[in-house]
Amino acid sequence: MGETRARRREGGGRAGRAARPADVAAPAILTRQIPTYELMGEEGLAAIEDAADQILQEIGIDFRGDEEALRLWREAGADVQGERVRFPRGLVRGIIQASTPRQFKQHARNPERTVIIGGDHVVFSPAYGSPFVRDLDGGRRYGTLEDFEAFVKLAYASPWLNHSGGTICEPVDIPVSTRHLDMVYAHLRYSDKPFMGSVTIPERAADSIAMAKLAFGEDFVDQNCVILGNINVNSPLVYDSAMTGALRAYAAANQCTVVVPFILGGAMGPVTTTGAIAQALAEAMVGVALTQLVRPGAPVIFGNFLSSMSLKSGAPTFGMPEPTLGYMVVGQLARRLGAPLRLGGSLTASKVADAQSAQESSDSLMASMLSGANFILHAAGWLEGGLTMGYEKFIIDCDHVGMMHVLMKGLATDDNALALDAFREVGVGKHFLGCAHTLSNYRTAFYDAEMADNDSFEQWAEAGSLSSEARAARRCKEILAAYEAPPIDPAVDEALREFVARRKADLPEAWY
Amino acid sequence: MGETRARRREGGGRAGRAARPADVAAPAILTRQIPTYELMGEEGLAAIEDAADQILQEIGIDFRGDEEALRLWREAGADVQGERVRFPRGLVRGIIQASTPRQFKQHARNPERTVIIGGDHVVFSPAYGSPFVRDLDGGRRYGTLEDFEAFVKLAYASPWLNHSGGTICEPVDIPVSTRHLDMVYAHLRYSDKPFMGSVTIPERAADSIAMAKLAFGEDFVDQNCVILGNINVNSPLVYDSAMTGALRAYAAANQCTVVVPFILGGAMGPVTTTGAIAQALAEAMVGVALTQLVRPGAPVIFGNFLSSMSLKSGAPTFGMPEPTLGYMVVGQLARRLGAPLRLGGSLTASKVADAQSAQESSDSLMASMLSGANFILHAAGWLEGGLTMGYEKFIIDCDHVGMMHVLMKGLATDDNALALDAFREVGVGKHFLGCAHTLSNYRTAFYDAEMADNDSFEQWAEAGSLSSEARAARRCKEILAAYEAPPIDPAVDEALREFVARRKADLPEAWY
Repeated sequence: MGETRARRREGGGRAGRAARPADVAAPAILTRQIPTYELMGEEGLAAIEDAADQILQEIGIDFRGDEEALRLWREAGADVQGERVRFPRGLVRGIIQASTPRQFKQHARNPERTVIIGGDHVVFSPAYGSPFVRDLDGGRRYGTLEDFEAFVKLAYASPWLNHSGGTICEPVDIPVSTRHLDMVYAHLRYSDKPFMGSVTIPERAADSIAMAKLAFGEDFVDQNCVILGNINVNSPLVYDSAMTGALRAYAAANQCTVVVPFILGGAMGPVTTTGAIAQALAEAMVGVALTQLVRPGAPVIFGNFLSSMSLKSGAPTFGMPEPTLGYMVVGQLARRLGAPLRLGGSLTASKVADAQSAQESSDSLMASMLSGANFILHAAGWLEGGLTMGYEKFIIDCDHVGMMHVLMKGLATDDNALALDAFREVGVGKHFLGCAHTLSNYRTAFYDAEMADNDSFEQWAEAGSLSSEARAARRCKEILAAYEAPPIDPAVDEALREFVARRKADLPEAWY
Repeated sequence: MGETRARRREGGGRAGRAARPADVAAPAILTRQIPTYELMGEEGLAAIEDAADQILQEIGIDFRGDEEALRLWREAGADVQGERVRFPRGLVRGIIQASTPRQFKQHARNPERTVIIGGDHVVFSPAYGSPFVRDLDGGRRYGTLEDFEAFVKLAYASPWLNHSGGTICEPVDIPVSTRHLDMVYAHLRYSDKPFMGSVTIPERAADSIAMAKLAFGEDFVDQNCVILGNINVNSPLVYDSAMTGALRAYAAANQCTVVVPFILGGAMGPVTTTGAIAQALAEAMVGVALTQLVRPGAPVIFGNFLSSMSLKSGAPTFGMPEPTLGYMVVGQLARRLGAPLRLGGSLTASKVADAQSAQESSDSLMASMLSGANFILHAAGWLEGGLTMGYEKFIIDCDHVGMMHVLMKGLATDDNALALDAFREVGVGKHFLGCAHTLSNYRTAFYDAEMADNDSFEQWAEAGSLSSEARAARRCKEILAAYEAPPIDPAVDEALREFVARRKADLPEAWY
């Protein structure tokens, strides 16, 4: 027998003819109303924290080429020998817990789009950092400024992403020396959602912050977070001066850094997931604590990025069960630490928006959600282990993020939700399609997935038998064609353009 | 910056050259070692249980055309008026809790493949009940006995499915009147994993059980569960005689029934998910209790199948956030009841094994896992809302089920897992590829996903730029070509063939 009654009903009844709401924009401030998943018990969590403390105390972390960071650690009571810093037990955790905000606002150019990061709040941000882009028509190619701007526009148009992201793709057609200026300008001009600035070297971090000051005002920026910088640790156990320089620049300006160990188990860390988690905890805690040494109370996010490895080739793999489990434990550790958490996103090793990409991305995103992540980078577009930003993948992922909006709301249990009146009205053996309870709840009952094809096979075949990737390609073009830039104060726009032009004139052109 | 360091390493180092284990067959008895996810608090759960009690007491359930079921309910103390049965508060739950086994063995023809259903154990079974099949070469077409046998072989060959399923697809090229005989024979002949029998009418249930007795011995079958029957409720609030007749036949023979309300919210139940859950609880409890009235202690599974609805067309949708949340609550309710639980599986409305199919299936399967499901039907192959069984989808889903095997093991926190010795060996800023800890843990560190392509873009392009669907099509043919039937006692095979031939001669040929 089974569920073959799941056949399509022709016409769909009265409720079936209800139109989709024209504008389904979600609020910028998203609040998780469901519990986190608690994978590991107290004993295991304490063992991992102890291992992290042991790593910090016995082995330590190198701060390479950054005298100021070494000075800050020495003054804080760490044991500094050359560039190696070792940390007495409890020092790092104590620094973090003394001043790190549990949640903070990141202000958007449009105040209605300001987000809260930390606590029970969730921010979804596009993928970050890929040199290539891909679409069905053009295949895989190097990213350009035009691609970058297109993705800023797509993220702006998405009702489900509440963040504009950072280096959504690398615009490799423009010089690396001034690329950050064009990227920050694009975020400020083509979107009004909160965004991320450059971190590649401290001067570019400073430029990003300077542009934010032009948009938000100098005093406002000193007192409020308006920009994020994503800082990767050089795992295992190394911070280089480019990264700590950018971190210090952001923290000194009271802007947020996301501190992210990127550990491919078996390469940049031990091959056992639990060991990689202990390392990630040690590395991220030190970066988070450094922001607090620079400026106590500066906003900061505890980040994590775990990858597993293919046994066949040694290549990194994504969306696999080991990082999924890892995220769940990292979520628990971050809550014990009391810091806002960045996790995974829609990760995959696949080259195209196929079943592999969706399977890996779904498990990865679901784990991020249930693990209590506050800032989900790479929520949309990621392909090929982060080497490629996919247009179709972006559209499909955004729809999936919309599902996560519903998931995080949980289920109501009031009288209307329990629907006893509906049973009284309908009785036994009859359908609920036209009953009063259905009509009054229909429009809000279910997530209306934009990219899911729920038509009959015959309807789907008549429409061209399109895969979801092909449908996403079409939808992507529609969104870009309908895009309208948000308004901007002409004086601010002029000031930003002048700044970009002046810095481009000052900076020597460099391509790598 | 971001995670673009996720570039492929050429060669893969020493660890990268380790071969994949030739045989990765998992044990038949799978035990969940991770906690369940507790979505809803006590108050909400109690409100849903109260609503279910209210439905049972005030509105009641029809048992249509089954005098024996009505007699059993009357004797148990229910209020029976014509075919309508109303249940005093606590009656149904009390019957269930008095005798329902919390877990039981379902014996396989090969004792090494016997499974445990209930408690902390998990069984993965193929999809069930679709009239159509699909592969990349032939597209979508009606299923045949050849297709049915092929899927039995594929399920047998999978190291991750520990169950052979039931009506994996409908073999519509053979008469419906005798189809069940060929299906049960195929499960017994082409696999040695546990399987499901026919439920469409009570006589076919009896035939299925008779064939099981030929394979296992009459006395053994009376004392042990060797066959499952999947019984769908005619939601809302109706059991028909075909279903309750089959249910009574299985229970009387001490065989297991899976009692499954199939509720498309807004059609066969209220449009609010919480109301549909209350209905599902009421309906399933009554069916489970009926098995215990027939034969106290008979094995039975509390089943659930929730679907949401497209706001555009009224069509059923799958893998959406509302059923995901629903599964989580149903898991909590089943644990409070103390009955083994069947949930979802890899559900999707997609017509092909594309990104939509994988996204919907992944969320659905992950929810089933974290909700504590013991028996996961539709774990592999489901397409098009259950109308189609897909060859490529089956292969991709099986690989995903393998990931769930890893997930349910959780993470170790012993000294080897914490890897402090590895940090001592490797130190700061060096890679872990060749260290002793990596070499000794490498082969068991990560799930080796068969269908995930983790090659470089260039390698993938050279190999034909195949999507995961295309790779699955190729892999499917390889598996079927390498298939070897498990051994069977020739006397048992002969007895089964004789039974099938005799019943075919007795039964009038019918095609619908």
